[in-house]
Amino acid sequence: MEPPYYAVIFTSSRTEGDDLGYGAMAAEMERLAAAQPGYLGIEAARGGDGAGITVSYWRDVDAITAWKRQVDHLDAQRHGREHWYVRYRVRIARVERDYAFER
Amino acid sequence: MEPPYYAVIFTSSRTEGDDLGYGAMAAEMERLAAAQPGYLGIEAARGGDGAGITVSYWRDVDAITAWKRQVDHLDAQRHGREHWYVRYRVRIARVERDYAFER
Repeated sequence: MEPPYYAVIFTSSRTEGDDLGYGAMAAEMERLAAAQPGYLGIEAARGGDGAGITVSYWRDVDAITAWKRQVDHLDAQRHGREHWYVRYRVRIARVERDYAFER
Repeated sequence: MEPPYYAVIFTSSRTEGDDLGYGAMAAEMERLAAAQPGYLGIEAARGGDGAGITVSYWRDVDAITAWKRQVDHLDAQRHGREHWYVRYRVRIARVERDYAFER
């Protein structure tokens, strides 16, 4: 991934109690996203307090818009608001620099 | 936070074993970052597998550069490479859109 490319920063707070299929849906969404044009990758972490961050990477804004409107993904978004999330925030950001350390 | 503003996406994989003061240093870095000019906020999540994501938010690139060069932060970066991280990646990204859901 050589900049510039795009990141979707999704920060969320999960509801407590029954998962209502959350894990299965999350895995299915990752699989579907990876099949979308312009998909570059995804990283996710969720702590024990229910606060989570998922960052997905995309070639451009058009790829993000297409994924946002994908039919199964729209269904997951609705289900997320109804069942899984207390709150979330989505940020669309243009990655300008990218550097790494490896042991 | 009204876009545009900047995000630093820090994804990392922690070493196993002794924390060697990792938690205390992380808390101290959050405290120091919050005192920097142009700081807007920070969010972090780390899963049980050691994979973590921290996103800090800044007014502009100059604020990020100043924080990167802050003396105590430089010391923490060096300590992180020597002890705490197997690998990490830093991405500097310009947030262009931002929307939220709240239950």
